[in-house]
Amino acid sequence: MVYATADGTLRKRLTVGMVGGGRNAFIGAVHRLAMRLDDQILLVAGALSSDAENAAASAAEIGIAPERSYDDYHAMAKAEAARTGGIEAVVIVTPNHLHAPIATAFLEAGIDVICDKPLSTTLAEAEALVALTKAKKRRFLVTLNNTGYAMARQAREMVAAGELGRILSVHGAYIQDWLTQPIDAQAQKQAEWRTDPARAGQSAVLADFGVHAFNLASFISGFEADAVSADLFTAVPGRRLDDNAHVLVRWTGGARGTILASQTSPGHCNDLSVRIYGDRPGSNGRARRQRNCASRRMGRRSARWCAAATARRRKPGASRACRRRIPRVISRPSPISTAMPPTSSARIERALRSMLRARRRCRTSSTALVV
Amino acid sequence: MVYATADGTLRKRLTVGMVGGGRNAFIGAVHRLAMRLDDQILLVAGALSSDAENAAASAAEIGIAPERSYDDYHAMAKAEAARTGGIEAVVIVTPNHLHAPIATAFLEAGIDVICDKPLSTTLAEAEALVALTKAKKRRFLVTLNNTGYAMARQAREMVAAGELGRILSVHGAYIQDWLTQPIDAQAQKQAEWRTDPARAGQSAVLADFGVHAFNLASFISGFEADAVSADLFTAVPGRRLDDNAHVLVRWTGGARGTILASQTSPGHCNDLSVRIYGDRPGSNGRARRQRNCASRRMGRRSARWCAAATARRRKPGASRACRRRIPRVISRPSPISTAMPPTSSARIERALRSMLRARRRCRTSSTALVV
Amino acid sequence: MVYATADGTLRKRLTVGMVGGGRNAFIGAVHRLAMRLDDQILLVAGALSSDAENAAASAAEIGIAPERSYDDYHAMAKAEAARTGGIEAVVIVTPNHLHAPIATAFLEAGIDVICDKPLSTTLAEAEALVALTKAKKRRFLVTLNNTGYAMARQAREMVAAGELGRILSVHGAYIQDWLTQPIDAQAQKQAEWRTDPARAGQSAVLADFGVHAFNLASFISGFEADAVSADLFTAVPGRRLDDNAHVLVRWTGGARGTILASQTSPGHCNDLSVRIYGDRPGSNGRARRQRNCASRRMGRRSARWCAAATARRRKPGASRACRRRIPRVISRPSPISTAMPPTSSARIERALRSMLRARRRCRTSSTALVV
Amino acid sequence: MVYATADGTLRKRLTVGMVGGGRNAFIGAVHRLAMRLDDQILLVAGALSSDAENAAASAAEIGIAPERSYDDYHAMAKAEAARTGGIEAVVIVTPNHLHAPIATAFLEAGIDVICDKPLSTTLAEAEALVALTKAKKRRFLVTLNNTGYAMARQAREMVAAGELGRILSVHGAYIQDWLTQPIDAQAQKQAEWRTDPARAGQSAVLADFGVHAFNLASFISGFEADAVSADLFTAVPGRRLDDNAHVLVRWTGGARGTILASQTSPGHCNDLSVRIYGDRPGSNGRARRQRNCASRRMGRRSARWCAAATARRRKPGASRACRRRIPRVISRPSPISTAMPPTSSARIERALRSMLRARRRCRTSSTALVV
Repeated sequence: MVYATADGTLRKRLTVGMVGGGRNAFIGAVHRLAMRLDDQILLVAGALSSDAENAAASAAEIGIAPERSYDDYHAMAKAEAARTGGIEAVVIVTPNHLHAPIATAFLEAGIDVICDKPLSTTLAEAEALVALTKAKKRRFLVTLNNTGYAMARQAREMVAAGELGRILSVHGAYIQDWLTQPIDAQAQKQAEWRTDPARAGQSAVLADFGVHAFNLASFISGFEADAVSADLFTAVPGRRLDDNAHVLVRWTGGARGTILASQTSPGHCNDLSVRIYGDRPGSNGRARRQRNCASRRMGRRSARWCAAATARRRKPGASRACRRRIPRVISRPSPISTAMPPTSSARIERALRSMLRARRRCRTSSTALVV
Repeated sequence: MVYATADGTLRKRLTVGMVGGGRNAFIGAVHRLAMRLDDQILLVAGALSSDAENAAASAAEIGIAPERSYDDYHAMAKAEAARTGGIEAVVIVTPNHLHAPIATAFLEAGIDVICDKPLSTTLAEAEALVALTKAKKRRFLVTLNNTGYAMARQAREMVAAGELGRILSVHGAYIQDWLTQPIDAQAQKQAEWRTDPARAGQSAVLADFGVHAFNLASFISGFEADAVSADLFTAVPGRRLDDNAHVLVRWTGGARGTILASQTSPGHCNDLSVRIYGDRPGSNGRARRQRNCASRRMGRRSARWCAAATARRRKPGASRACRRRIPRVISRPSPISTAMPPTSSARIERALRSMLRARRRCRTSSTALVV
Repeated sequence: MVYATADGTLRKRLTVGMVGGGRNAFIGAVHRLAMRLDDQILLVAGALSSDAENAAASAAEIGIAPERSYDDYHAMAKAEAARTGGIEAVVIVTPNHLHAPIATAFLEAGIDVICDKPLSTTLAEAEALVALTKAKKRRFLVTLNNTGYAMARQAREMVAAGELGRILSVHGAYIQDWLTQPIDAQAQKQAEWRTDPARAGQSAVLADFGVHAFNLASFISGFEADAVSADLFTAVPGRRLDDNAHVLVRWTGGARGTILASQTSPGHCNDLSVRIYGDRPGSNGRARRQRNCASRRMGRRSARWCAAATARRRKPGASRACRRRIPRVISRPSPISTAMPPTSSARIERALRSMLRARRRCRTSSTALVV
Repeated sequence: MVYATADGTLRKRLTVGMVGGGRNAFIGAVHRLAMRLDDQILLVAGALSSDAENAAASAAEIGIAPERSYDDYHAMAKAEAARTGGIEAVVIVTPNHLHAPIATAFLEAGIDVICDKPLSTTLAEAEALVALTKAKKRRFLVTLNNTGYAMARQAREMVAAGELGRILSVHGAYIQDWLTQPIDAQAQKQAEWRTDPARAGQSAVLADFGVHAFNLASFISGFEADAVSADLFTAVPGRRLDDNAHVLVRWTGGARGTILASQTSPGHCNDLSVRIYGDRPGSNGRARRQRNCASRRMGRRSARWCAAATARRRKPGASRACRRRIPRVISRPSPISTAMPPTSSARIERALRSMLRARRRCRTSSTALVV
């Protein structure tokens, strides 16, 4: 599938298949919408459901040919790898516990992986994935999409260029309210699996979206967590996993900060923010994105930041600069796209270790908290 | 000094003296401005400075008669106690380390005390003050003034009335930026003493205003801190005390939360906020006061809260209701007044123990943080 | 092109062609992006440019087959009408002065029209289009897309249901800053044609986007302009058309208000808002959408409004309710889609007359203003 | 009454009397609170009510000596002028229709006047006051207090210094909601007289506070209204005066703009704002003050503006600069003070003519509006 680009060259759309994302799923349709926005990815195959009937109906609905619709991801990996013009990458949009086995199957078949967060539910799985990706010389992307926004990239460059001076503190927060009531006990499908240890993993609130706050704070600041002390707790009685995380962080390089994640904070439907403070007089970095009710409070330097981020998206020169930094799969990061930033194997490894270490520590220090 | 009130009764203005607050001081003038606003307090004596010349000149400037101007607080306590029509209370607005000795002198002389925060710099001093206040049967007020705002009182009532449901989390934050640069090393007077352990006490950022965030969160929620884990740190090299505090809190009653205080966060000149989340569907309590750049983001229930707080200040009935709850000294709490809420001895004791325990724990757990 | 829908029925994607929108154009790509978002429209033909080479290259770039790429819209109308499986509708995204002749050509060929705003540059053209649409029994849609947002539709229903009480005043504003400098005199392509009377029409600021403020205020309130008094002016010397419009409006039904449109207001990149005030105690309707720097200030009732609009987009029941009201072309209006609301011929006629009458009156009363 | 100042000189507090402002009045107490804040004015006499009993009781309540409490302003003017140490100025805080006769009485007695807005209810009265002030060589101040805010003064200097470039448009708005319901027909005292033509004058909404929006826009921009076209209307049936004003303005110097004033806009309790746009790239001047629910949206240049205004209030140098520009009566304008800016006789005359001419024109053009 070759298409002409604005600069006169020919470009091939990436052909992908999807695992998960059938009719009653939540996030698969969002990924497909983002693919259409970018218009550089063709979805041509899928194992959209493990239920044969649902898989076939879901595939028909979104235009996947019947012969490339599967109800078993092992069969899909095998068939697509064997097929002339088979998919170049698989997009995994299933519950958390299936990420690792599905990714393994496609890596084994020599197919690149674009996997939703979190990468896995245990450190052992994650380490195995990193090793397999290296051994198979494949690409492995995790859709921590919030780093694709122009504003996030602009913020990262401002920090890297020293515009904020030496960084003193870095705070990330992702606040939601959809689990304030015990809807997981009332058969709400999304709430049900996301609070089930067997499918969500060791932490509901961190695995589901706390990881975004952590990742975005790390992406913009350039720091990794060096030490954490966390108070994970379950605010709603009877819930099987935590729904709130209050985390103290000591970042590499010496800055301190917090990561807050909550599913029980009424008034915040989807409130992701990062605040970074440096010692340069007058400097202030603060990003806030709230999907449904976006608001941004401007500090001293942030007006310039906003303007620069806008320019980045607008100007031909600026977008070329973007393109150089961002690899083939996503050449046009935009604030409305669920962009998929690349993560090198080395970085995956570091991120995973940090994330899973954080979880362990959280649990540990959580126990130790009540002095 | 008797005056007629709106309801036809006679009322006597409270006569007070001030210790500290001379010509080059910062907060004394603010307290005097607040007294004039309320118009129910007469400032008639003072030891405004320990420098005799400055004390006399400062007293002349604000209309204190020469015979009631002192340059020694011991002399002032003795003379005013002996004098017919001597002051009924002393207002202490000196650096932190003098709070306890000055308060002790006036309590000994049988004079009530209105003392700026923090009450003392050690737990032993605080316990002695509580005991002395009881023994002398005096009143002792600490000017944790932010609880005097109509919005804070409205919030407290909403929580108490169950309007937010069961409280799940309580966060307080007081964020400033004035110490981002090392101005304490550059002879800036306020910065210099507030970061000096000999005068400020064990923590700069908590003693100076972190205590306000702590107190306001406690006042509105009705909770006390049951356990804390803190990361106190000094962001500016060479500073003698901490300038940032990130604190995890487990509140009595089961809610969790954080207290953040910072003096090095550019863009926040004076940003005090409390966020309280309850499990009632649609409930959201969030207060934010920023003296110079006030902004308030409205959640679902907060519009009603704002309206109610406004009504409270406006309606005759509402203000009478306020008056009943607020004792003599401050009968008209207003958002522009540095109101002085009353604190019973029992409450002083609890607050002190909690605060000082928090400091100790912060230090302890801070050391224990790097797991 | 048949596809299965969520409710199990089969649905045919609408096949369309585009006139305008070639390589160096601005808005054509935005329309194509919106079509991909909705995923219910297939773009299969185009006269993307009147330059043969550019037309061919532009068509190749976006996947239009060479045999359905044209460089002349007359030829396209004729060929597509004659072809089996020819386009069902044409999307017109050219400069304003070409809207009417192109629409006429396709209506004559029996093809439905989706035309960008403004419909035409003279009342005579508009009346002729209305008559032709009726005579040919075709559909004619104008892309006043802002009415497609869930929040706009929710607001309209709240007004219609009397939730705001009797409407007292209705204000609309669309404020931009991109023409603050004389970039139209500096060969900036968009600025150049949009301020050229020969291509933009009688007013730059009203035709280009003031019409959106007017239309959205009218859509939400249900009112039409009954009388206007306007001050149109050109803030930048040498510009050929007005770049600011301050308009007093008397709405049908008795409410009053203003419409403001500006291209020279620094700080507002794309700031569209509608404010509606009713006499119901506590009622307040205010919508604000700012594409790059969205912010929304909440009034008393607006939190409920926001929640309801969110629910409208989320809940299956709510979206079904939406679907019933919104015709085939746009079945999923969303805040990120450049949705295309339908306009009946009768309504087109009224809107046109009102709009063009407004322009005439503006000019007239503008002259009469300096009393 | 002499007092020492910070710079070592002696200064005399200004002695004033008040007409109006008795027990059940609204604004008198606010003026007294502002006087106490500044601490440079002594209130020593008053005709607080024309009811003898209320006058005496009101005077007693605020500490005015019985021998200087009057129930007739003529008697007060005469007695105070004759008395050694009589008042230096009178503060007039009565309903609008009494401003001119009271001011006349005190000017005749040789006493300076500080009069609440609006100056008078007819142009003839105003012209007579200007002439009398000149003839008697007195000072005459109108309490258009919003110009006293540091931010307003900073904005004016930025405009004057060309920081915004050539000014293109100037908008002022003062939006309230307290008259949305017909409370004037329900014996609410403030609503009752402010909508009574006999006491409020020719326009309720403009005389009561629209004049503030007009004055502040003029003060900051340095422009006067050159021509106006207005739509004054009464939204609440049965009300005797207008409660809304939508005004198009052509300012001296060529800028255009609008003035909006409303008493029936739910959600805006006291929302005063001025927006000024200049042609300097990136420039943006926007001030917003909302007494109860302050919020400020920051544009590109406004962060600097905010910082500068803050600095102005803080820095000793800056406050000295302020002092030089602001005459004796108000030496410390502050954001919490109802400061009283000086107005020269010449400026009073211009302002009056402009204001009253505006009213006339509004009425005229209002009639002419429905074309």
